Amino acid sequence: MARPLVAIVMGSASDMPVMAEAGKMLEQFEIAHEEKIISAHRNPQTLHEYVSQLKDRHIEVVIAGAGKAAHLPGVIAGQCTQPVIGVPMKTSDLGGMDSLLSIVQMPRGVPVATVAIGGAVNAAILAAQILALKHPAIEKKFIEYKEEMARA
Amino acid sequence: MARPLVAIVMGSASDMPVMAEAGKMLEQFEIAHEEKIISAHRNPQTLHEYVSQLKDRHIEVVIAGAGKAAHLPGVIAGQCTQPVIGVPMKTSDLGGMDSLLSIVQMPRGVPVATVAIGGAVNAAILAAQILALKHPAIEKKFIEYKEEMARA
Amino acid sequence: MARPLVAIVMGSASDMPVMAEAGKMLEQFEIAHEEKIISAHRNPQTLHEYVSQLKDRHIEVVIAGAGKAAHLPGVIAGQCTQPVIGVPMKTSDLGGMDSLLSIVQMPRGVPVATVAIGGAVNAAILAAQILALKHPAIEKKFIEYKEEMARA
Amino acid sequence: MARPLVAIVMGSASDMPVMAEAGKMLEQFEIAHEEKIISAHRNPQTLHEYVSQLKDRHIEVVIAGAGKAAHLPGVIAGQCTQPVIGVPMKTSDLGGMDSLLSIVQMPRGVPVATVAIGGAVNAAILAAQILALKHPAIEKKFIEYKEEMARA
Amino acid sequence: MARPLVAIVMGSASDMPVMAEAGKMLEQFEIAHEEKIISAHRNPQTLHEYVSQLKDRHIEVVIAGAGKAAHLPGVIAGQCTQPVIGVPMKTSDLGGMDSLLSIVQMPRGVPVATVAIGGAVNAAILAAQILALKHPAIEKKFIEYKEEMARA
Amino acid sequence: MARPLVAIVMGSASDMPVMAEAGKMLEQFEIAHEEKIISAHRNPQTLHEYVSQLKDRHIEVVIAGAGKAAHLPGVIAGQCTQPVIGVPMKTSDLGGMDSLLSIVQMPRGVPVATVAIGGAVNAAILAAQILALKHPAIEKKFIEYKEEMARA
Amino acid sequence: MARPLVAIVMGSASDMPVMAEAGKMLEQFEIAHEEKIISAHRNPQTLHEYVSQLKDRHIEVVIAGAGKAAHLPGVIAGQCTQPVIGVPMKTSDLGGMDSLLSIVQMPRGVPVATVAIGGAVNAAILAAQILALKHPAIEKKFIEYKEEMARA
Amino acid sequence: MARPLVAIVMGSASDMPVMAEAGKMLEQFEIAHEEKIISAHRNPQTLHEYVSQLKDRHIEVVIAGAGKAAHLPGVIAGQCTQPVIGVPMKTSDLGGMDSLLSIVQMPRGVPVATVAIGGAVNAAILAAQILALKHPAIEKKFIEYKEEMARA
Repeated sequence: MARPLVAIVMGSASDMPVMAEAGKMLEQFEIAHEEKIISAHRNPQTLHEYVSQLKDRHIEVVIAGAGKAAHLPGVIAGQCTQPVIGVPMKTSDLGGMDSLLSIVQMPRGVPVATVAIGGAVNAAILAAQILALKHPAIEKKFIEYKEEMARA
Repeated sequence: MARPLVAIVMGSASDMPVMAEAGKMLEQFEIAHEEKIISAHRNPQTLHEYVSQLKDRHIEVVIAGAGKAAHLPGVIAGQCTQPVIGVPMKTSDLGGMDSLLSIVQMPRGVPVATVAIGGAVNAAILAAQILALKHPAIEKKFIEYKEEMARA
Repeated sequence: MARPLVAIVMGSASDMPVMAEAGKMLEQFEIAHEEKIISAHRNPQTLHEYVSQLKDRHIEVVIAGAGKAAHLPGVIAGQCTQPVIGVPMKTSDLGGMDSLLSIVQMPRGVPVATVAIGGAVNAAILAAQILALKHPAIEKKFIEYKEEMARA
Repeated sequence: MARPLVAIVMGSASDMPVMAEAGKMLEQFEIAHEEKIISAHRNPQTLHEYVSQLKDRHIEVVIAGAGKAAHLPGVIAGQCTQPVIGVPMKTSDLGGMDSLLSIVQMPRGVPVATVAIGGAVNAAILAAQILALKHPAIEKKFIEYKEEMARA
Repeated sequence: MARPLVAIVMGSASDMPVMAEAGKMLEQFEIAHEEKIISAHRNPQTLHEYVSQLKDRHIEVVIAGAGKAAHLPGVIAGQCTQPVIGVPMKTSDLGGMDSLLSIVQMPRGVPVATVAIGGAVNAAILAAQILALKHPAIEKKFIEYKEEMARA
Repeated sequence: MARPLVAIVMGSASDMPVMAEAGKMLEQFEIAHEEKIISAHRNPQTLHEYVSQLKDRHIEVVIAGAGKAAHLPGVIAGQCTQPVIGVPMKTSDLGGMDSLLSIVQMPRGVPVATVAIGGAVNAAILAAQILALKHPAIEKKFIEYKEEMARA
Repeated sequence: MARPLVAIVMGSASDMPVMAEAGKMLEQFEIAHEEKIISAHRNPQTLHEYVSQLKDRHIEVVIAGAGKAAHLPGVIAGQCTQPVIGVPMKTSDLGGMDSLLSIVQMPRGVPVATVAIGGAVNAAILAAQILALKHPAIEKKFIEYKEEMARA
Repeated sequence: MARPLVAIVMGSASDMPVMAEAGKMLEQFEIAHEEKIISAHRNPQTLHEYVSQLKDRHIEVVIAGAGKAAHLPGVIAGQCTQPVIGVPMKTSDLGGMDSLLSIVQMPRGVPVATVAIGGAVNAAILAAQILALKHPAIEKKFIEYKEEMARA
């Protein structure tokens, strides 16, 4: 199996059904990836160690999904140099507005590339677009996807 | 000057005018405190080191103010055992709703004791109430404050 | 059975399924507590009498859950000196945004330590953190909990 | 001066500029009234005593204005039998949405007749409409007002 | 059967399950009432004729329930002199926030006494409180209700 | 001066600065129009009479601007057969969200063609687009406008 | 079958159950129409070609339904001269508030006539009102509909 | 002057003061860029032509800022294969919530990497992070920036 280019991180096992869609979409683009469940709040040390190794492990893009006071994407973005894509989880009370604002309203200096509430598939597509700039094989796959979508 | 019992932390120097009110209120209760500006996103390592020493330095309560995707209180709460009081900053676009949700909607396991948007004074009062359980001198001061408020 | 340190109060019997989780969490920390259903609006006199005895009964922290125009935590906070933790109930129409704002936006002088919508478990954890400052046995339990959470 | 029929209560002196408009409108209807500043949170005992005497003092309608976690109208409504009209104050951060929800979303059993954010004048008009059912002189004044408004 | 004192009006037959609770509550207070389904938008002429006869028919309070762009209570209030109590219906998309704002945010001159989203029972209680000022039998019933509620 | 094709109605003189922009835009399209200030709540009878004559006076489109619980466009739409364009006014507390929901969320059977908050100019453009279907001179003017806009 | 006067366009096949109600309503008015599924984002070229032919095909009104970041109605409005009616789809997370704001808040120069969230039936009624100005047969049908509605 | 790698596009000249900050930030990273004002709604054809040439002109990242019903980033994303970063403009009525939802809530297949309301600086930083994956000189500059930020 190929060395992963994308890390999919989520704050809770309950986020897996949504975040797994990102993994499936990356597979469609033949982009190797890994999936991790690490809470920014409950496992800050584990998260810190994981993020600090991303560069040496040649991970190029991080997709992070989290809900409610969703700090995971921002905390990762604060600790690494790679682009971080944030996926706000839908919440049962506020519909995901809390997750969205907690992810997208990042202060100056540390952006998170935020997609729609529950938008794990789009997070994978965005990762593919970013990687396509550097990896011709991914660019080819992405252009095919875009053309197929237009035909559908 | 007395050893500080309360740490007031804020994410940005622009939060100081609001957060300084917490310091003034603590002085009224004669509670020693310190004030620090450390961004959870721009200075994660500095923050981690600061928080990891709070216990040894006998800080008993943390007051953390932050705005927008306000992760500071939650990130501190994830790394220490002391109660963390969160102050959501008013924001110029969403009025502070983003700060509030980013602070109060913490996931299971890591609470932040959230006060009103811009509620730095109340954060200090809450800190005093918490410390009053253990420190009779603070309890005395707090009861006086409460009685004076009722008379006013 | 031990003398209760924490009072869990709720505005309606319908809040019990959520608030009971706070009780279970306190038991995990071996913190004795009591549970009461008293409406701030329908039973103001009963509430007043109950709150006025909390100090003599050595209750150190109050957890209050309420929904909609959720006045219970604030009304209790106005009448006692102990820290009051507010739990906004999820509501069927506005998702709990009404409960949250009614609890967290307390005016200067009378804070309520607000946790997430439906965050009864976190209210208990916050109570444990507050009590841990004074009670070494609770501090020990809390540190164990935090370590176990990080390992999970 | 006539015995007051309406009590205008507000939580803070800062509410006076808005709430004074209610008083002026009542004067236009020649309805005697009194104005009080009592915080539900800072002066609960004073409020309780004031409200418990309203009936004996023949106050027939209460107008209560409050902002943020605006408990004053609901707390009064819980302690008296007269109709209570609630005026949500505009707030500098959330525009008054917090005040509105804290006043209007009262639970079953204890209604507050809520008017618009900042709607002190309408609170006085509603008081006049209620009193007009019983007091022919007020009914006459109100009908004149309504006719004049239609002509304007 | 007694001459009705209260008119319960709703904009759509689909509002009946909620609004019927207001009728049941009025029966508990032995307040005669009538129930009508008239849309402010689809039957403006029918509504106008109905409202213009309310005074001659000695209706003293109107309870009006409506959802979405809920104009019914305000339109009635514009055409009659009696107090109008508005009940915002819960909506399937915005939870009733649209109904609430459309009812409560009435402009200067024409108030609607607004209760909580879905608060038909409270609308009836408020009607009873208003009528109790003039009708001793209703006052007696209301005081009994309030005492029973406090005991429950 | 030409017979008016469009009626611009607003609920209050304070809406004139915004609504006058609709008039200026119509003049640019050389569409004759009239402007009226009639409150749906304070002058229901005047409004009813005005609306009932619109057809005989050959008014083809109505533009109605209103704020807060903005019933004017919906009330007009309920009483006439012409298309009604609604302009939600910005409000000082809720930014116009109240006006928007009160206008756009019309129930089945009586639509209001709603434009953006404060969108009086767009209301005039929409009126021109509607009239252009029937009046070739207006169609010509509108196509010129559209082309000029694309060039700008 | 008659040449269509109205085009019903939607962004996704999942919008069909709601948008089909617009078609049924148009049939009741005997207004010929066509239904198309074209995404503004996935098929921009197909959409551009379709819209550019609307005029030559004598389509007089466009009804466009879309959800979430609902750009379809606005994109069509930017490319044609006919009135465009926008139908915001209800969304599972934010209830359709996202769809509503994405459709109604169009900038100066390019209005979309927006109806309620899920208001496909009202979109058809509004189309009928617009067409009635020019087509006497549709006007006759619409007046009958309005009279029947008032009788119901 | 170097061939631009980043295109900064905005819907209106009024967006320039905010969007110009993105340009200044890119200059700090020595990333060549161009700035264009093209409305998605008023100049769809101009926009289409501009976007269709981006690839041949070797633009690698697009930053698009827009307000209200902010379609520009999504429309560009639908027509090109490069990553598109969306900047929601603050609006005077809804604070930018409309812009945010119109940009971030993109449907499956066409993501926009959304940053905070008014977050033009962060859009530039995100662009630098994306480009850093491929361009070592930019990576070096970005790591320096990150280190300097941590020291500040």
